[in-house]
Amino acid sequence: MKKNILIIPGDGIGQEVTAWGKEVLVKIAEQFGHEFVFEDAIMGHTAIEATGNPLPDETLEKAKASDAILFGAIGHAKYDNDPSAKVRPEQGLLKIRKELGLYANLRPILLFDELLDASSLKPEILRGTDILFFRELTGDVYFGEKLRNQDNTFASDLMNYHRYEVERITRKAYEAAQTRGKRLCSVDKANVLETSRLWREVVQEIAAEYPDVETEHMFIDNAAMQLVKNPKKFDVVLTANLFGDILTDEASQIAGSMGMLASASIGDGTGFFEPIHGSAHDIAGQDKANPLASILSAALMLDIAFGLQDEAKAVTDAVDKTLKAGWRTSDIADKTTPADHILGTAAMGAKVLAFLK
Amino acid sequence: MKKNILIIPGDGIGQEVTAWGKEVLVKIAEQFGHEFVFEDAIMGHTAIEATGNPLPDETLEKAKASDAILFGAIGHAKYDNDPSAKVRPEQGLLKIRKELGLYANLRPILLFDELLDASSLKPEILRGTDILFFRELTGDVYFGEKLRNQDNTFASDLMNYHRYEVERITRKAYEAAQTRGKRLCSVDKANVLETSRLWREVVQEIAAEYPDVETEHMFIDNAAMQLVKNPKKFDVVLTANLFGDILTDEASQIAGSMGMLASASIGDGTGFFEPIHGSAHDIAGQDKANPLASILSAALMLDIAFGLQDEAKAVTDAVDKTLKAGWRTSDIADKTTPADHILGTAAMGAKVLAFLK
Ligand SMILES: CC(C)[C@H](C(=O)O)[C@@H](O)C(=O)O
Ligand SMILES: CC(C)[C@H](C(=O)O)[C@@H](O)C(=O)O
Repeated sequence: MKKNILIIPGDGIGQEVTAWGKEVLVKIAEQFGHEFVFEDAIMGHTAIEATGNPLPDETLEKAKASDAILFGAIGHAKYDNDPSAKVRPEQGLLKIRKELGLYANLRPILLFDELLDASSLKPEILRGTDILFFRELTGDVYFGEKLRNQDNTFASDLMNYHRYEVERITRKAYEAAQTRGKRLCSVDKANVLETSRLWREVVQEIAAEYPDVETEHMFIDNAAMQLVKNPKKFDVVLTANLFGDILTDEASQIAGSMGMLASASIGDGTGFFEPIHGSAHDIAGQDKANPLASILSAALMLDIAFGLQDEAKAVTDAVDKTLKAGWRTSDIADKTTPADHILGTAAMGAKVLAFLK
Repeated sequence: MKKNILIIPGDGIGQEVTAWGKEVLVKIAEQFGHEFVFEDAIMGHTAIEATGNPLPDETLEKAKASDAILFGAIGHAKYDNDPSAKVRPEQGLLKIRKELGLYANLRPILLFDELLDASSLKPEILRGTDILFFRELTGDVYFGEKLRNQDNTFASDLMNYHRYEVERITRKAYEAAQTRGKRLCSVDKANVLETSRLWREVVQEIAAEYPDVETEHMFIDNAAMQLVKNPKKFDVVLTANLFGDILTDEASQIAGSMGMLASASIGDGTGFFEPIHGSAHDIAGQDKANPLASILSAALMLDIAFGLQDEAKAVTDAVDKTLKAGWRTSDIADKTTPADHILGTAAMGAKVLAFLK
C-alpha cells in the first residue's frame, strides 16, 4: 500500500514525541511491505515564529494533499499569559480542523493492565474500563462569533450548532457503538442550553435508527462526576466540542496519564492523528515526554485511515510488551518502578521499536 | 439573634433532605438561644405543578424578605427527555440566582477522614485535600441569549461576561484565599474563548492587589484532569459558571459522594444555601437520600449568612461524630460498612440531631 503521510510536530514536546510516532510508521512500512512517503510541515507557535501565521498556506495545502496527518502538540505559555494576543498557536489547530472538515474526534480510553497502579483512581474502579469518546470538533463555542467591546468591559463567544453537525457525528458514534458494547451515552446540558436541546433532539431521532444500541442522555456535570465514580458504566460517549475537550482530559487519568492517549480526528477527507496531551513546554526539549501517545496515534492512523488492522495491532502489542517488560516514562512510573526502568523519550521510543518485530 | 429563614425544599429528594437541614437549624436555635422564624415556599417542578411557574412571585417575594434561604434540589426527568419543553424547573433556580444577585457560589470540598475509602480515588491522593470553589453564578452561557431557528436546523447560546461580574467574584475569592492556603487557581479556556481572555485579564489585574496570594491560571481541560490526578494542589479555585458547574460535580468524588457537599450562593443581599446534589428522582420518596449535604448547607448558612461560627462548628462536629460512629447512608457506605449501619434519610438525620448537644 502506498500512502502519503504528513508529519506536523508542532510545538513543545510535539517535536520529540512525533519523531517516535514517525519511526514506528517507518518500521511498520518496512515490515509489512508498504510504501509510506513522508513530508513535514509547521504549525502553531513554531509556524508563527517562522512565518507569522499559525497555519501557513503551504501546511494547509500539504495537509489536503496527504492521505493522513500525524500531529504533535500546539501551544506556548507566552500567549496563555497574554490574553490580548491576536495571533495564537491554537488558531492553527482550530483552522486545520475546520478546513479539513474534521468533525469527529475519536478518543479511545485504552487501559493497559500494567498501568492500573499509575492512576489516582482505585484499580478496582478502573479494571475493565473501555471507553470510546466521540467529541464533535467543528462547532460549538470554539467557532462562533467572538466579541469584545471597545472599553473592555464585555466579552462574548457564541456557542452554536447546526443540525447536520450533530447528525453526522451521531451516526458515526452509533456505528461504532454497534461494533462495541452497544451502549451510547450522549452528554449535554439540555437543562440550560438551547444548543444542547437541539443536540438531544437530534440524538433522540437518530437513536431510533439504531434500536440495537442502548441510548442514555446525561448532563455534563453528572458525566464529569460519573467518569470518576464509575468509569466502567460508559461504552461510547458522544458529546459536543467543549464538553468533549473537558471530559477526555479528565478521562486521561483513567489511563494513568495524558501521555498514553491518542486521538483520531476524522471527516470526509484526510484524517488527523494526535496525542491528546499538549505541548508541555515545562518539559520540552528535555527528553522527558512520553512518546507512547504519539506512537498510539500512529496505530490509530494505520487502523482508521488505512484500514490496516494487523499493522495497528502490531504497534499496540509492542507498546503492551514494553509496558509488560516494566519500562516506564516518569509520568506513568509509580513507587514500585525501579529507577533504572524509568526512561526518557528516546529510550522509551527505542524500546517500542525493538518490540516491533 | 433573630433571623427569618425561608425553606424551599424544591423537587425530588429536596423534600426529604431539606427537612433535616431545617431540623438542625431548629435545634441550634434552641441550644444557642436564637430565634429562627421559618417560612416555606415552592420552586421548580413542584411549583410548575402547583402554579405553572417554576418561580412564583410569592416565592421570590418571600426570598427577598428573608435573611437566608435553605434550598433543596431542582429538576425532573420529565423535562430532561423533552428538549422542546418551554417551561422547565431549572428556570426557577436560574431566575432566583439572578433576581437575588447571587453571584458567587462557594463550594467547599470538605473531606471527612472517615469517608476516604468511599471515594473512587486512592486515599493517598485524597488525604489532606481542602478546596474551596468560587463558581460565578450570574453570567456565562447560562443567561446569554438563546436562539433556535424556525426549521430547527440551528441553535445557539450566547456565552458572555461583563468585567464587573468577573471583578466582584474575583475579589471575594482572593479574600477567602488570604484566610486559607493563600493560593488561588483561576480556571478558564483563554486559548479559545474571548470571555476567558477577559476573565484572565481581570484576574491578572486584581491579583496585583493581593500580592500575598499565589495566583495560577489553568485551562479547564487541564483542571478537570488535575482535579483527579492531584486534588491537593488546589486551595481556592475560581471559575466561571459553566466550568464551575462541571468541576464542582467532578470534585464531589473527592468527598466520596455528592451527598456530602454543601454550597453557599452569596451576593449583595439574601444568601442561598443548598446541597450540590440534584433532585435524584430515581430515589426520591424512598428514604434513601443522604441528608448530610442539606445539614452541611445549614452549617454554611450559620457561618456565612449569620456569622455564627460556633453554631456552624457544632453542626459539622455532629456530622463528624455521626460518621466516626460508623453511621452511613448507602451512597457513602463501602464494603466494610456493616449492613445495620447503613441508614435511611430519616435515621441518618436523627443521628446527627442526637449528636448535636
Ligand atoms: C489546544 C486547544 C485549542 C485544544 C482544544 O481545546 O480543542 C486542545 O485542548 C485539544 O483538546 O485538542
Ligand atoms: C440545575 C442546574 C441548572 C444547575 C446548574 O447547572 O447550575 C445545577 O447543576 C447546579 O450546579 O446548581
